[in-house]
Amino acid sequence: MTSYTPTPADRFSFGLWTVGWQGVDVFGPASRPPMDPVAATERLAELGAAAVTFHDDDLVPDDRTREETLQRFAKALADTGLAVEMVTTNLFGDPVFKEGAFTANSRAVRRYALAKTLRNVDLAAELGAETFVLWGGREGAEHGGGKNVAAALDRYAESLNLLCAYVKEQGYAIRFALEPKPNEPRGDILLPTIGHAIAFIGALDDPSMVGLNPEVGHEEMAGLNFAHGISQALWHGKLFHVDLNGQHGPRFDQDLRFGAGHTRGAFWTVDALEGAGTDRRYDGYLHFDFKPPRAEAEDGVWESARACMRNYLILREKVRAFRADPEVAAAAAAAAVAELDQPTVGAEESLADLRAEDHDVAGLAARSVGQEALDQLALEHLLGVR
Amino acid sequence: MTSYTPTPADRFSFGLWTVGWQGVDVFGPASRPPMDPVAATERLAELGAAAVTFHDDDLVPDDRTREETLQRFAKALADTGLAVEMVTTNLFGDPVFKEGAFTANSRAVRRYALAKTLRNVDLAAELGAETFVLWGGREGAEHGGGKNVAAALDRYAESLNLLCAYVKEQGYAIRFALEPKPNEPRGDILLPTIGHAIAFIGALDDPSMVGLNPEVGHEEMAGLNFAHGISQALWHGKLFHVDLNGQHGPRFDQDLRFGAGHTRGAFWTVDALEGAGTDRRYDGYLHFDFKPPRAEAEDGVWESARACMRNYLILREKVRAFRADPEVAAAAAAAAVAELDQPTVGAEESLADLRAEDHDVAGLAARSVGQEALDQLALEHLLGVR
Amino acid sequence: MTSYTPTPADRFSFGLWTVGWQGVDVFGPASRPPMDPVAATERLAELGAAAVTFHDDDLVPDDRTREETLQRFAKALADTGLAVEMVTTNLFGDPVFKEGAFTANSRAVRRYALAKTLRNVDLAAELGAETFVLWGGREGAEHGGGKNVAAALDRYAESLNLLCAYVKEQGYAIRFALEPKPNEPRGDILLPTIGHAIAFIGALDDPSMVGLNPEVGHEEMAGLNFAHGISQALWHGKLFHVDLNGQHGPRFDQDLRFGAGHTRGAFWTVDALEGAGTDRRYDGYLHFDFKPPRAEAEDGVWESARACMRNYLILREKVRAFRADPEVAAAAAAAAVAELDQPTVGAEESLADLRAEDHDVAGLAARSVGQEALDQLALEHLLGVR
Amino acid sequence: MTSYTPTPADRFSFGLWTVGWQGVDVFGPASRPPMDPVAATERLAELGAAAVTFHDDDLVPDDRTREETLQRFAKALADTGLAVEMVTTNLFGDPVFKEGAFTANSRAVRRYALAKTLRNVDLAAELGAETFVLWGGREGAEHGGGKNVAAALDRYAESLNLLCAYVKEQGYAIRFALEPKPNEPRGDILLPTIGHAIAFIGALDDPSMVGLNPEVGHEEMAGLNFAHGISQALWHGKLFHVDLNGQHGPRFDQDLRFGAGHTRGAFWTVDALEGAGTDRRYDGYLHFDFKPPRAEAEDGVWESARACMRNYLILREKVRAFRADPEVAAAAAAAAVAELDQPTVGAEESLADLRAEDHDVAGLAARSVGQEALDQLALEHLLGVR
Repeated sequence: MTSYTPTPADRFSFGLWTVGWQGVDVFGPASRPPMDPVAATERLAELGAAAVTFHDDDLVPDDRTREETLQRFAKALADTGLAVEMVTTNLFGDPVFKEGAFTANSRAVRRYALAKTLRNVDLAAELGAETFVLWGGREGAEHGGGKNVAAALDRYAESLNLLCAYVKEQGYAIRFALEPKPNEPRGDILLPTIGHAIAFIGALDDPSMVGLNPEVGHEEMAGLNFAHGISQALWHGKLFHVDLNGQHGPRFDQDLRFGAGHTRGAFWTVDALEGAGTDRRYDGYLHFDFKPPRAEAEDGVWESARACMRNYLILREKVRAFRADPEVAAAAAAAAVAELDQPTVGAEESLADLRAEDHDVAGLAARSVGQEALDQLALEHLLGVR
Repeated sequence: MTSYTPTPADRFSFGLWTVGWQGVDVFGPASRPPMDPVAATERLAELGAAAVTFHDDDLVPDDRTREETLQRFAKALADTGLAVEMVTTNLFGDPVFKEGAFTANSRAVRRYALAKTLRNVDLAAELGAETFVLWGGREGAEHGGGKNVAAALDRYAESLNLLCAYVKEQGYAIRFALEPKPNEPRGDILLPTIGHAIAFIGALDDPSMVGLNPEVGHEEMAGLNFAHGISQALWHGKLFHVDLNGQHGPRFDQDLRFGAGHTRGAFWTVDALEGAGTDRRYDGYLHFDFKPPRAEAEDGVWESARACMRNYLILREKVRAFRADPEVAAAAAAAAVAELDQPTVGAEESLADLRAEDHDVAGLAARSVGQEALDQLALEHLLGVR
Repeated sequence: MTSYTPTPADRFSFGLWTVGWQGVDVFGPASRPPMDPVAATERLAELGAAAVTFHDDDLVPDDRTREETLQRFAKALADTGLAVEMVTTNLFGDPVFKEGAFTANSRAVRRYALAKTLRNVDLAAELGAETFVLWGGREGAEHGGGKNVAAALDRYAESLNLLCAYVKEQGYAIRFALEPKPNEPRGDILLPTIGHAIAFIGALDDPSMVGLNPEVGHEEMAGLNFAHGISQALWHGKLFHVDLNGQHGPRFDQDLRFGAGHTRGAFWTVDALEGAGTDRRYDGYLHFDFKPPRAEAEDGVWESARACMRNYLILREKVRAFRADPEVAAAAAAAAVAELDQPTVGAEESLADLRAEDHDVAGLAARSVGQEALDQLALEHLLGVR
Repeated sequence: MTSYTPTPADRFSFGLWTVGWQGVDVFGPASRPPMDPVAATERLAELGAAAVTFHDDDLVPDDRTREETLQRFAKALADTGLAVEMVTTNLFGDPVFKEGAFTANSRAVRRYALAKTLRNVDLAAELGAETFVLWGGREGAEHGGGKNVAAALDRYAESLNLLCAYVKEQGYAIRFALEPKPNEPRGDILLPTIGHAIAFIGALDDPSMVGLNPEVGHEEMAGLNFAHGISQALWHGKLFHVDLNGQHGPRFDQDLRFGAGHTRGAFWTVDALEGAGTDRRYDGYLHFDFKPPRAEAEDGVWESARACMRNYLILREKVRAFRADPEVAAAAAAAAVAELDQPTVGAEESLADLRAEDHDVAGLAARSVGQEALDQLALEHLLGVR
């Protein structure tokens, strides 16, 4: 049986804030001691990760120790061979951002948010990160009258345009990735889904510099199909990065380890990332953004980190077996899956032809579509009984 | 006290399928007899509506009686003065569309869907409709392997591009409006939210010809804030039409009369349509797409139709009073709502200035944001106690 | 590899309405022709089922053919050896029940509902069914003022008490099982969850005669954990019957085949039915209440029926392997799972002792709980990689 | 216009932890300084509250200052005239309870939980509280294998039985009230809804001593109708206490001020508490368990507290007007609401009579049910336009 032990070639990446989460929630304080980011980096390397990511505040929250911490961290990266593939700025923790950051009503807050981000973009470039994620967790509102949504989108776009211009001016090899989320901690967050964020990007000065970092749980909190979502993002060329974790539908943000939660959804997520039988593959890092449950002590933290990668490898093997299975190919043929690749109206055809032709409506209505049979094969691959 | 009696100047519009719904659901057959579309049109006119809309199948389901029905309907329009402001094609009822229409795996089905739509676009043009809605209720999947999402989006775009080209070629004054929905009747529907649909439109040959027809309940089924959604659609210039009704969050599609369900959301919906204190107003028809509950007999059907309009008028009056209230203006000023209109970085300013400036983080963190006070005023306007 | 082919010893049972569903939904008419209940019975026998169940209306909707149909059906049962293990009355389809049956405001409707049920209880007894299910799909309301909930519960209890008294008087070997559901087709259904129904039963004249028939999807529509729900039902001695299917969280009632939807939940559902490592096993029939998707033709209907049973057998094998795995036992020991069996205060101990003792709060706060490690083993059993 | 200014006669009560919430959430630290519980008590008295409640940890988190704090608090109560109507124990904050309290796998933790509760029950009795609330926020699991639900319910019942016995033995005038919640902070919490908790109480040694403290938002997180839930609780005689707040359906626990969120639901909640036109009124304190949004500074805290009471008074006035409105009475009569009070089978009637009678099924199916008309009147009362 396969070992499912990751190597850097698998391109797994972890936020330092994931294993470093101390368990503070609305109902209780920390259940775990702080974790040294350097020690976390070393341990993730041992487990087989290829890269780490961080919010500025995770790594360098205190200006006095900033330089020393960065030096220790740089050494750990060099020692372990881990990359910093992505960096993000914490624009949600400090109470200064309690009413938003780029879209706060307060102009002074917006200016501080931009300054904080710029400083961190420089750091990201220095560390060689190629993706800069922006999660606007406090950009939103609990209520309707206090936030002018049109003005907020204007300001959001303004910030993105300024950041893109800065990156181009500096010659940094950085692209931005927006991370949508429907709610929590704000009642309703702006750009709540993959779709809203791609739509918004289309209105920026240079849409090519901005894409998405969708998160499994965030879409599933809105009851949406994550594999469909990232497939649409890939279709638009906007899947710049991905956050993998687990969730049980519309409820609080659970951030379970990848594979837990909606396991069947995870199978299709891996399938979509691997191209879903097409050539639209995701080729970036596979980034886990999960929270080891607050109940766990440090042993559980590392078990959950290990399992994120292991589950991806297990599911990847299954997805590949599914796509290579001749019975699946036969079932897909019976379900006419590939017929959808054919244009509805061919190059030589006219709409007049199409309108004139005789449509066998009753016959088509009665046809077999073969979806259950194909899906059962997929489920059996997931369950490991094929 | 105001009468809240609608007139055609209010531009209310109803789908014939709404009052005509016979109550068939998954768990039981019709509870009401069929309603003659001409009689329905006349009654809606009496109630104060300005326009009607229909699916081809609602009005002209049977080809033998097509001409006669159309003539009777045309006469009713002339007699009542009602407009046909929008037309849509039923691409979801007939079992031929059981596995999709524009995105069915079966090419023959896709061709029939296109032919049916083209025929109905001609009818729409003939009747003077300026909006043609496309709701792809069966475009989607229950499972992951049977539908190639990228190919489906290719075909969806192909159909839209063909339809737009046809409309231009014919010189029709018609724009298309996509209606997003997350699920039901399919397990997961393509273009599930306002955001996904706007993103998709950006990838069409002529995005200017295609916009949205968002529906209150459809967004709320995904737990999304409808007022935020249409505000973003307005920001993109994509709110071509709107479907007003009521819903109780993530569950089956309830299609309650407008005002029922999430009443507070309805207040902000009307506010957003009226511009939310800005100049981005919706100026189209106010279209109700609801279902009189299956339990009701015909008296309840008309009561619910009457109440849709009445509730809009009540809420419109409240929204206007809210926006005109000096105490609200003071609270909005305290909440710095208008400060969001100011660019974060002024025309004369540089990022370097911004980075160099001294940010009073602690002071800003402690500031009053005044959102609760402002929202309580809004709630009191809703409740009619101001 | 195991064959996963069911036999009657597996006690699988199907509602005739499941494979017989013609695909009528709110958005379209039937997509499949009617299915002869006798032919359905024979085919289910071939597939390995042990029993069938039905609503009166599924089998004998038309009084003229009632006797003949019943005779043909009895012959099919005799020929195939299938049992009728459960019968239920359709109190939701006919528009007479549009506003409720046992809790309709109309007394005449309530009387008809009771008469219809009594007639069908006689039939159930005649056919040897030991469970009589009551699903009150129309018992509820869309709105707040039209239904007095206390009076409705009074009437609900009255009906149950009358039915129980009748069954006792007749000497029938029948128990009643209530089927909770939160919503759909009514806006809010009375007795919306397993918990509400058990609570209600406690207020009946003879609680021992009434238990539950919980359905996977119905609890998951409320975001509840089905395995937890039936475990509580077993704890109360109230799991009289079970409806197995699949669902994707809060949305419309999907009625997917068992195993599809929340597959990981299905694993724990089977585990709970098999006793979850305790002696509280469910020993009734394993009843599937699903809907073959409307898109499928008859081949898909039978594929989905076959897969319901197959998936149960696959999951049962996995659950047993999980419970027998020595590594799981070690992980469960590390997680102190069995320590929960020990009373918190022993027979010899007093509360005074407990209050006087020194609690090592900090040490206990820091302990390892081992839940992630144990859950990962369970997930790997589900995925078939152990 | 009415002043909507509360007085102690309105029996409003607040948890000290509500106004005292500092804004710590999963995504950020405190946004507000600690609030002195004595100062909070005084301010609540000024605003018109009648009572306060607290968790032991809110008031006396530190043993060294325990006595002094209690004395200052007792003086504030005496000075203001406020009662302590309810007390509860924090069994969820300290990491010792990270894996549960009464149902932790660790017996030592369970013993500590019981000891902590007993100590606090003594304090509750000393302060004259008559209700002792138990919210088991950490009683549950993220995963399936680590928690034996049957054993957990055994231990939960054991703790309740011990606590009830202790209270009886001490002669305290205290009743216990369980607070159900479906999830958050645990993945799935035991006794997730009103129904599950009432069912569980039925299995205790002395069910009369234990009832419920349902919370608006907790039921709405499961998509359930809160007014229906508390109506069923009243029907069972189990509505011992109530937690009023606001929520937007299935998502994280928002704890909005009462009236915000699902405002229409709040109308029916007040109606249910006031008896819904029947004699089953709730006569306990009206307790607000909300969180002033993290974005607010102290001014917003007090605004939200003030608004909770004000909104209740506004809604109470509306509910009473609704129930007293002759047009409503006429609409209720048309909807046959009171007919549900009549037994389905009268004292003089037999089932045989009922079965023999001629049921006018078609006529009843076609009847008017009048629910939309009645509901529209209710909505207009809510909106203040009647």
